[in-house]
Amino acid sequence: MLKVPDHQVAGHQAGDGKLGPLIDDSGHFYKPLQNDGRGSHELAFYTSFSTDTRIPDHIRKFFPVFYGTRHLEASDGSGLYPHLALEDTVSSRINPSVLDAKIGSRTWYPQAAEDYIIKCLKKDRETTSLELGFRVSGLRVYGNKETGFWKPDKKCVLNFSIEDTRLALRKFVSSNPSTDSGIKPDCSFASTVYGGPAGILAQLLELKSWFEEQTIFHFYSCSVLMVYEKESILQGRNSGAEIKLVDFAHVIEGKGVIDHNFLGGLCSLIKLISDIVTSSA
Amino acid sequence: MLKVPDHQVAGHQAGDGKLGPLIDDSGHFYKPLQNDGRGSHELAFYTSFSTDTRIPDHIRKFFPVFYGTRHLEASDGSGLYPHLALEDTVSSRINPSVLDAKIGSRTWYPQAAEDYIIKCLKKDRETTSLELGFRVSGLRVYGNKETGFWKPDKKCVLNFSIEDTRLALRKFVSSNPSTDSGIKPDCSFASTVYGGPAGILAQLLELKSWFEEQTIFHFYSCSVLMVYEKESILQGRNSGAEIKLVDFAHVIEGKGVIDHNFLGGLCSLIKLISDIVTSSA
Repeated sequence: MLKVPDHQVAGHQAGDGKLGPLIDDSGHFYKPLQNDGRGSHELAFYTSFSTDTRIPDHIRKFFPVFYGTRHLEASDGSGLYPHLALEDTVSSRINPSVLDAKIGSRTWYPQAAEDYIIKCLKKDRETTSLELGFRVSGLRVYGNKETGFWKPDKKCVLNFSIEDTRLALRKFVSSNPSTDSGIKPDCSFASTVYGGPAGILAQLLELKSWFEEQTIFHFYSCSVLMVYEKESILQGRNSGAEIKLVDFAHVIEGKGVIDHNFLGGLCSLIKLISDIVTSSA
Repeated sequence: MLKVPDHQVAGHQAGDGKLGPLIDDSGHFYKPLQNDGRGSHELAFYTSFSTDTRIPDHIRKFFPVFYGTRHLEASDGSGLYPHLALEDTVSSRINPSVLDAKIGSRTWYPQAAEDYIIKCLKKDRETTSLELGFRVSGLRVYGNKETGFWKPDKKCVLNFSIEDTRLALRKFVSSNPSTDSGIKPDCSFASTVYGGPAGILAQLLELKSWFEEQTIFHFYSCSVLMVYEKESILQGRNSGAEIKLVDFAHVIEGKGVIDHNFLGGLCSLIKLISDIVTSSA
């Protein structure tokens, strides 16, 4: 039984007759192939990546497992449509808190069409991408049964300043995410979610080491998804903190050069998260 | 006695009635203050940096010592002109080999004037800056008494492809730098100049560690100068391998964010040099 995922924080969303991703109970996430070449480009990436023996296992775990393509009834009611069948790392969780950070101060690649470059450059300058090296594309943070999720709308998130971004990264690991600006986020889950040997910071640093070396792919307009389960922590269990790279419609060949654009942005995200861990220790 | 330095590989050069840097026998390098605000901007950086207690000594050594300003007879014969008095780390050496790498895939800063941004973006796209994260701005490599220096002209260097850049970094540490493209550069000084505990790679990695943390300055259009003395190696002495950051006319405040643009490009340079050390070990 296909349904619209409720955990999605960025990208095209299904519902209201729109084409968007679907999930089922098998733990798969079905992403409709975007037209204008992006869909086929992302499919080509997953096909190439999933069989590339140069990718070490400890890095492969940061990418969704790819199960091929499926023709499914599209969410916009237009009939059968090709979808990428991917591992769904979020839907199986209980009230997952999710943050999507689009990495890189530049979301366009050198060989892109001129009008695409102009469009991206404008957005990179209008958001934090250019100055901060990444931008938050969306987030939802679980509070509790009464408050539910804090989920600022898309327009609000795209207007985030650097200080807003810093605050969002603090709220993401706070027990009081949705409170007014008067009360400081408590960062009470920072040490559990960001910190520790299996925390998000450790995973980001592992990814960073790979990006210092790998010259296979350059990831433009690609996001790091950060996920964890607050209730799991409160019940004394593992936070389930996990990062995944998503959105590969603009991945190009590295041709022997490191992805300095992604690496720089990743280091900036690491610095901000590291500052939060340090200040709440 | 002021004279025109002969080791300069990039930037405005004195001689033929043009305004450019001068040296004397005191070990000072006099850089005329550029007009249109760049000179005063660079002066402000040196003034601020030289008294900033947040800069650790092991990082300060990568910057030229600043001795204030001097009014000197300009090299273009126009009379007294203000110059920055800086440590001259190159002229005192014997036949120094020098390479100037302008770091960052983006040489413009967000707040710059629109026409300046367009000009820089164009040059970043025409050179290797955008794809490689840095571009070689100039180099001269000592061969021997007969051949002298291999010093490709400015136009040639600005047209370097990524492969040309890789080759130049190999030639920089070769005993046969100026040979035709048929013969491979031997990289016979790679382990001495790039490698080792005091080599250029170790220094670049030390600088990188600082850039992963520091949020004080963002260095746009700034270069890493790499210097060593071949004859010193041949005589069994220290290579004198040293890196220095130069050109601070476009440094802006970091405001709590790391310089991901410089860091990304620095990591790309490190990867290329690291590849050379590994392959010639």
